[in-house]
Amino acid sequence: MSAGVTTGRAAEVLVLRDGDDVGVATRDIAPGDTLPGVDAAPLVAVDAVPRGHKVALRDVPRGAGVHKYGQVIGVATTDITAGSHVHAHNLGYEEGRREHELGGTHTELAVPDGPRPTFRGYRRADGRVGTRNFIAILTSVNCSASTAKMIAAQFPSSVLAGFENVDGVIPLTHQSGCGLVPDSEGGAMLLRTLRGYAAHPNISAVLVLGLGCEMVLTSQLATRDGGGAFLGMPSVGAPGAPDAAERMGVLADIAADTLVQSLTIQETGGVRATVRAGVEAVRAMLPVVNQRTREDVDVSELVLALNCGGSDGYSGITANPALGWASDRLVAYGGTSALAETPEVFGAEHLLTRRAQRPEVAQKLLDRLEWWKAYAAAGNGSLDNNPSPGNKAGGLTTILEKSLGAVAKGGQADLAQVYEYAEPMAPHEGFVFMDTPGYDPVSVTGLVAGGATVVVFTTGRGSVFGCRPAPSIKVATNTEMYTRMAEDMDVNAGRIVDGTATLEQVGQEIFDLILAVASGEQTVSEELGIGVEEFIPWHVGTVT
Amino acid sequence: MSAGVTTGRAAEVLVLRDGDDVGVATRDIAPGDTLPGVDAAPLVAVDAVPRGHKVALRDVPRGAGVHKYGQVIGVATTDITAGSHVHAHNLGYEEGRREHELGGTHTELAVPDGPRPTFRGYRRADGRVGTRNFIAILTSVNCSASTAKMIAAQFPSSVLAGFENVDGVIPLTHQSGCGLVPDSEGGAMLLRTLRGYAAHPNISAVLVLGLGCEMVLTSQLATRDGGGAFLGMPSVGAPGAPDAAERMGVLADIAADTLVQSLTIQETGGVRATVRAGVEAVRAMLPVVNQRTREDVDVSELVLALNCGGSDGYSGITANPALGWASDRLVAYGGTSALAETPEVFGAEHLLTRRAQRPEVAQKLLDRLEWWKAYAAAGNGSLDNNPSPGNKAGGLTTILEKSLGAVAKGGQADLAQVYEYAEPMAPHEGFVFMDTPGYDPVSVTGLVAGGATVVVFTTGRGSVFGCRPAPSIKVATNTEMYTRMAEDMDVNAGRIVDGTATLEQVGQEIFDLILAVASGEQTVSEELGIGVEEFIPWHVGTVT
Ligand SMILES: [Ca+2]
Ligand SMILES: [Ca+2]
Ligand SMILES: [Ca+2]
Ligand SMILES: [Ca+2]
Ligand SMILES: [Ca+2]
Repeated sequence: MSAGVTTGRAAEVLVLRDGDDVGVATRDIAPGDTLPGVDAAPLVAVDAVPRGHKVALRDVPRGAGVHKYGQVIGVATTDITAGSHVHAHNLGYEEGRREHELGGTHTELAVPDGPRPTFRGYRRADGRVGTRNFIAILTSVNCSASTAKMIAAQFPSSVLAGFENVDGVIPLTHQSGCGLVPDSEGGAMLLRTLRGYAAHPNISAVLVLGLGCEMVLTSQLATRDGGGAFLGMPSVGAPGAPDAAERMGVLADIAADTLVQSLTIQETGGVRATVRAGVEAVRAMLPVVNQRTREDVDVSELVLALNCGGSDGYSGITANPALGWASDRLVAYGGTSALAETPEVFGAEHLLTRRAQRPEVAQKLLDRLEWWKAYAAAGNGSLDNNPSPGNKAGGLTTILEKSLGAVAKGGQADLAQVYEYAEPMAPHEGFVFMDTPGYDPVSVTGLVAGGATVVVFTTGRGSVFGCRPAPSIKVATNTEMYTRMAEDMDVNAGRIVDGTATLEQVGQEIFDLILAVASGEQTVSEELGIGVEEFIPWHVGTVT
Repeated sequence: MSAGVTTGRAAEVLVLRDGDDVGVATRDIAPGDTLPGVDAAPLVAVDAVPRGHKVALRDVPRGAGVHKYGQVIGVATTDITAGSHVHAHNLGYEEGRREHELGGTHTELAVPDGPRPTFRGYRRADGRVGTRNFIAILTSVNCSASTAKMIAAQFPSSVLAGFENVDGVIPLTHQSGCGLVPDSEGGAMLLRTLRGYAAHPNISAVLVLGLGCEMVLTSQLATRDGGGAFLGMPSVGAPGAPDAAERMGVLADIAADTLVQSLTIQETGGVRATVRAGVEAVRAMLPVVNQRTREDVDVSELVLALNCGGSDGYSGITANPALGWASDRLVAYGGTSALAETPEVFGAEHLLTRRAQRPEVAQKLLDRLEWWKAYAAAGNGSLDNNPSPGNKAGGLTTILEKSLGAVAKGGQADLAQVYEYAEPMAPHEGFVFMDTPGYDPVSVTGLVAGGATVVVFTTGRGSVFGCRPAPSIKVATNTEMYTRMAEDMDVNAGRIVDGTATLEQVGQEIFDLILAVASGEQTVSEELGIGVEEFIPWHVGTVT
């Protein structure tokens, strides 16, 4: 047994970390039931403990912290006897007790013995490594979305048959690009997201497609020093490009080996003419992009995105901690692994701030949470991450416990950096956090814009999420759903609660699959062709 | 000459309404140039007047109101001589002078002699009349968007060849449905929009498609008394439907002859199983929907949406007033015609309030403008509808003049009603206003959700907009753009400024085309297959 992860001790009581005071009942327990031993001694249930609820593994005196996930989830409000049901009647959490430690904890992650893992990736001119090799049609505004889809539709797999190294031609369409204030926070965020995709290492060529009178200019999306022209073809939409880019004070850091071509519908003469010109542009890109080949690269070149959607009572005890194991392993090897979904840590942010490597990293997270308070207030709402009645019925007692279940995706590694939505994430950075909503497509779009090259997505209810151009591995939290939706799932972490696999075993399986997928193995969502509709830049601010 | 509309007096000076004090120069005018007569007497230019700018048609004493579009656009700040350039140097507008008359003006619209126009429409069970006959796949959440597109992709025109009365199978996908607060203003607005499409008279059958764990429930979208089952097939997603609908306090008023079927991906067993079930459901709908036929109905059954995008200096003097002529004609016959795009009247709202039939209608518009002030402030922005430097260079002097150019789409009819975004609009209502953003796809989505069955869209820069299931007629404001993008335009209103057609002639042409299109004639955007990507419900509020 390694790194504080419990092996498959029990199908009846799941202990998430050695030293925890509570385990999770995986079946309804009756008083007097004998439970598998913890610390060698057999445990006898004192109370009835419903499935998914907590049972005390040892005596905890009143006032002492109660540990789950190796962390304090609250304080015993009475003396708790081993074998008791632990819930709101004997476990409390006082909001006022929370301290925002700016760093302070440090977790040493051991690098396993043996050769370092590698994967077969695309080394790009800027040094980053891609896991796929796509041509993207990137739209500056919704007005060019239909045209982008028409161009992409001319390149089905049958047409791409002669270009085996090309993963596809993907339209990246969205619903904005006009009716917004370009200099606003929302305008800057949209621009950052679109430019992040243009610069993504999984995209080797980009056709930027605009209408012509939109607020977001095609020239803002894929400019670089030396201009955006490709193969001597004039960049039709870009006569005013330098001025426009200078006006916004931005120049995209797009790899020198990314082919770039721009078109606007108005200058090209309408939809049909633009489809013809766009198809011609993509046809010219195909043989160049097809020459790109995979090579062996070190595991530390990966930028992993962690996410979850359609969570259930098993998420925090199966799929999320197993993913956390894989994340810690990648971080141990020197890669980058990004947690996100800020609303899910809201109110329990010290779970992350105390892991910060430097105080300013912790402070940046606290600043983002202040931003969220204002954002929610402006929308006449508030953020409430407290356990809902449904959460409580399922066995979650405190906000700490609930947030720990979500944060478990990020393992135990120190927090190296906090990024804003769609900010470029550095490779070789370690464990990082990106500020995104919890809403799946919006969160993952930000992470991919930031450069994530593989996504792992845990789901309890059964998400069918995918996100091109980055492959997305879906991990089921429970066997019932996995069985029902087997065609949509890559991994079954439900085996942890079934007692047929340990957290470590599933974690290793996820880690190995990340490498295989990074090397080209298709995820189920890729086989299904899912991942274009799910490109959704976060929209912040007013639509006018 | 009828109803205050000027016939083709001039290519050099365009007079928008009899009695106007100013005309618009359609070429650069030099001092001493003789201009076509106004009120019989010849006019000699006193100043240089740039193209698009205003020239005084008669003397206007200092302090008098200056009329354009038959309305006061400002006050003479000096004595103005006939033939002078009229702009910021001699025309002013004081913000403080604005009064919000709650009604007060009334325009009598004469019904032309002769038989009443009719069109060939689909009379639906609820009495409304459709102009198309679609099967829609309506998604409750982005998570089912890819699956919806896969189902629709199984019904290309070749497959529909045997079903001549079916216009198509359209996926209506969007980017929300989760990560929002269902009880919030934004949640209610999304639900209203989706339900408006489910109830649209151009949709004869709806397959509601959800994932299963989203916040917007499939059962909220297409429930009605008697349940949503179709042809005895169980409505898979709807076991809890009545409860869920009751919980939200809403029951859609969907016509009794609309076929309804619901599926969720989680209950159906994943993407592939849902595609199979969805394709089967649509196949069963096809022969039923194909039995629907067109019949002669009165013109007053039309619900027209007015919109513009990519405006230019010609919008307010060619396409918009010509569309206003057609709108007034429809209103005269007793139809409904809806103006929208609130930011474009912001600051000049009395142009509409004084046309209100009842004070409470005017007050509702003022209430919506107050809402916009708060909306913009919450997004840290402000609404500024004043003429920009570019507008001023083009010849627009005051906010009134600029807004009049936009509002000209709505003709002169009295204002019968003000609707919130996506609210169901009553037929036979007359001229109405719907509160929407100016951003084209969001504005038109609200209008179509409200029941608009034909859209007319004016554009100067060259929009390629389309919006299924409602046909959208595109009107070019200038001949140069019309010629360049002829495949994307339905009407050229640039002829008005070329002097080759009058406002009335183009207005009549638009009116006749509305009837032809309502009867089944395809618009260019329909021929191109545009109008699915452009379904964009207005997103208001926080994404979590
Ligand atoms: Ca989540
Ligand atoms: Ca999520
Ligand atoms: Ca407009
Ligand atoms: Ca518009
Ligand atoms: Ca519009």
